[in-house]
Amino acid sequence: MKKHLTHEEINNLDRFPKVNLMNSVTGYKSANLIGTKNSEGATNLAIFNSVCHLGSSPSLIHFTLRPHTVARHTYENILSTKYFTVNQVHSGIIKQAHHTAASFEESVSEFTAAGLTEEYKTDFYAPFVRESAIQLGCEYVNTYKIKENGCLLVIGAIKHLYFDEHIQDSDGFLNLEKAATVCINGLDEYALPKPLDRFEYARPNEAVKSKILK
Amino acid sequence: MKKHLTHEEINNLDRFPKVNLMNSVTGYKSANLIGTKNSEGATNLAIFNSVCHLGSSPSLIHFTLRPHTVARHTYENILSTKYFTVNQVHSGIIKQAHHTAASFEESVSEFTAAGLTEEYKTDFYAPFVRESAIQLGCEYVNTYKIKENGCLLVIGAIKHLYFDEHIQDSDGFLNLEKAATVCINGLDEYALPKPLDRFEYARPNEAVKSKILK
Repeated sequence: MKKHLTHEEINNLDRFPKVNLMNSVTGYKSANLIGTKNSEGATNLAIFNSVCHLGSSPSLIHFTLRPHTVARHTYENILSTKYFTVNQVHSGIIKQAHHTAASFEESVSEFTAAGLTEEYKTDFYAPFVRESAIQLGCEYVNTYKIKENGCLLVIGAIKHLYFDEHIQDSDGFLNLEKAATVCINGLDEYALPKPLDRFEYARPNEAVKSKILK
Repeated sequence: MKKHLTHEEINNLDRFPKVNLMNSVTGYKSANLIGTKNSEGATNLAIFNSVCHLGSSPSLIHFTLRPHTVARHTYENILSTKYFTVNQVHSGIIKQAHHTAASFEESVSEFTAAGLTEEYKTDFYAPFVRESAIQLGCEYVNTYKIKENGCLLVIGAIKHLYFDEHIQDSDGFLNLEKAATVCINGLDEYALPKPLDRFEYARPNEAVKSKILK
């Protein structure tokens, strides 16, 4: 027997039960740390659960920002310097990753406070997270303001991609189990996915087949 | 030692290795079936890995559509009838869910072809997936065209939420492990997350603490 809530009943929930519930209803979300550096050289690092693939040619990603959040420094740094990094969170750094969500003063770098390591390479302006197995160096492309609630959808282009070589399968795919990449449910649960299967391209009149890599 | 690919090197990859790689770099994605019915009563069901939480007050979600994809019927039905459902995929229906990605003729319903069951309730126009533990009845709100690659970002409002009662924790959060909800890596891997921990709200000068629910 299922519980049923209407739009009005959801709206009338208290703030925290509503936020917890609404952050679970679409399923698991990605776990990434976004790294930036302002024009004076101060670094910032923040956990995001909204980073998504947007396209492969060209390689684009997007993420969302709430109107007034702890992520404001991230966005200000992206607008003023044009660069940011996206770093996947693995099971060994979930406490550190979650800690970056705290409201630190602007003078404090979340790298230092949370115990993660800034890494600079290829003359890229923004700091990568050394501990991450998969790192993207992104250039700011555009912002779409979602007029329905004031959120911002930020688009970035992948200029540099780094990943541990042993995690790539023969067809290009990154085996995220080997990277111990985690995902997020709600605002505060971190979970480690265990692969069930990979499937061949689906065809109308054929049963779905497991993908056997050569 | 990490492998490094620049924007140009990514662009120069062959189509399938590029698509496989680019669909892994942002981490795990949600797994949802979107159900619709056209104005003549023909139903459609399609797997999406891009459904995301957008806001809690009001309760909004978004997902993306590529310019020309198998999802065209989904979008046409949403525009003409204004309603669609979002149904979480669990570990027991991953083959059926993947099969909905095949290019069926318009006269064929993916519900029948893939072996999933249409469910109608609360006079809601669009069909739910009976097998899903968490179901959203959504009203179409808006589309943002992403000019950088022609993708569409579709916004929906949650009008009805159904979920198995036993999966909700005392703070509102849905325990997706109890629902056996899966996530997706790339285009074709289905994985079952195992919770590692839930954490308390992060504060600057306190270590991150596990959340113990009363």
